[in-house]
Amino acid sequence: MKKLKRSERLVHMTYDLLQHPHEVRSLTQFANRYGAAKSSISEDLVMMKDMLEADGRGTLQTMAGASGGVKFLPKMSISEANTLIDKLVATLHDPDRILPGGYLYMMDLLGHPRLMHEVGRLFAALLAHTQVDAVMTVATKGIPLAYALGHQLNAPVCIVRRDHRLTEGATVSVNYASGSSNRVQTMTLARRSLTPGSKVFIVDDFMKAGGTIRGMMDLLAEFHAEVIGTGVLVETADVKEKLIDGYVSLTKLARVDVKDRHIQVEAGNILMKMREHTDEKDSYK
Amino acid sequence: MKKLKRSERLVHMTYDLLQHPHEVRSLTQFANRYGAAKSSISEDLVMMKDMLEADGRGTLQTMAGASGGVKFLPKMSISEANTLIDKLVATLHDPDRILPGGYLYMMDLLGHPRLMHEVGRLFAALLAHTQVDAVMTVATKGIPLAYALGHQLNAPVCIVRRDHRLTEGATVSVNYASGSSNRVQTMTLARRSLTPGSKVFIVDDFMKAGGTIRGMMDLLAEFHAEVIGTGVLVETADVKEKLIDGYVSLTKLARVDVKDRHIQVEAGNILMKMREHTDEKDSYK
Repeated sequence: MKKLKRSERLVHMTYDLLQHPHEVRSLTQFANRYGAAKSSISEDLVMMKDMLEADGRGTLQTMAGASGGVKFLPKMSISEANTLIDKLVATLHDPDRILPGGYLYMMDLLGHPRLMHEVGRLFAALLAHTQVDAVMTVATKGIPLAYALGHQLNAPVCIVRRDHRLTEGATVSVNYASGSSNRVQTMTLARRSLTPGSKVFIVDDFMKAGGTIRGMMDLLAEFHAEVIGTGVLVETADVKEKLIDGYVSLTKLARVDVKDRHIQVEAGNILMKMREHTDEKDSYK
Repeated sequence: MKKLKRSERLVHMTYDLLQHPHEVRSLTQFANRYGAAKSSISEDLVMMKDMLEADGRGTLQTMAGASGGVKFLPKMSISEANTLIDKLVATLHDPDRILPGGYLYMMDLLGHPRLMHEVGRLFAALLAHTQVDAVMTVATKGIPLAYALGHQLNAPVCIVRRDHRLTEGATVSVNYASGSSNRVQTMTLARRSLTPGSKVFIVDDFMKAGGTIRGMMDLLAEFHAEVIGTGVLVETADVKEKLIDGYVSLTKLARVDVKDRHIQVEAGNILMKMREHTDEKDSYK
């Protein structure tokens, strides 16, 4: 490639780093590709880092040494997170989503890739300085969230299934009691879809008592994997005792009144966790 | 926000445009946000456009007038597409993925968000100048591809299901004959997950005779929706006659020898379609 001007180099490098969050990009390769001195590249990166940090969109982490490189860690400012959650709450408030039995139609939210991408970026912000080897979810509705987060963290996704398919190979199964129906069901994960000992973050679209997530945790124990945390898009408030601790939620469903067609929904606990996190200057646990 | 230097503005604008492919971003908002003249913003965009086009990563489309704006259309050069397909072919070639019955384990590929993102970008490249109102797939394995593409095209995703859930509301169902088992099954789509009359691109992970995709097309007919095209990650070569026409495939599975543990796989037809497309300078059909 021909020698680039600084402005051109900046466009290129921004593109490259943003397309590869949590992935080390080599400084030497940048320097060679743009026909620039490594010191110029470093100066560019300092400016980019300042820009990203100024509006809370992320940071750059530089690694010194022969294998020196830089990686983009996506973040989200509390005010941006606030706006996102307000938007989710307003959308969930729409009574047209009430289905027979008090269920809520959510595919308008879950079927919106750009919105899922933003939610993934919010979870990734909390996990920016935490090692996550894999993101786990259960089919079907948790999948969009899991991929959005996996992309931001550069981590593989493993999908737990409620059925059993011929295209999975050897599997591990556990039983679990689903909170909503209280029925005992089976969930299954392909043996080779998760490396034993991995540090895993669990995501799902909806959590009532947490029975399904409890099931995923039991499954992870079978893989000697460690649960780093859990994130859900919607939790319900009507459950006295959750079966799991230490989860983050974006929204909280307080009440669904089928007769009066009214949904009462509020922000979840994630903003509180982000504030604690910012205060402590510590990694999310 | 304080007045930014040109270099800072470029980092910011590149970030903004890349985060929002196929979405109009307002020039006036850029100008106000950066405290810059609209003419300076326009100059920046010309340079960015040249940069993106030079290595085939995309283009910028500017819309004149009061509501003037710019949008980033992701593309992929044929050489980059070639590299991606070579990588897929090499990965699929691994005999360890052969399962009993000649099925192939593919979750290592499908469970890799960054790779799915690249595949989505490749499909989006073909569709850069085509109107796509929605991306459709069938649960579970097509979902990662559908979201990767939906994100790049800024289009919603609708997920067809083989089971029936209480959280979908009113649904439309069709029967279809799955190519692999030749059994007649039912597939279902929530009535409100697709606007009637939409232009829809279908994606799936695997296509044998195309019975499942044929089923999705029948379902789309029920919604008076138009099929713009179909894209699959893997097609099989052992079928005399496909039930559908005009699909694009990334890879083609020629033979799976369970006894000798050998997989013969080659590139699909997508590179050919890209070349035709480049020759005709016409939109993909």
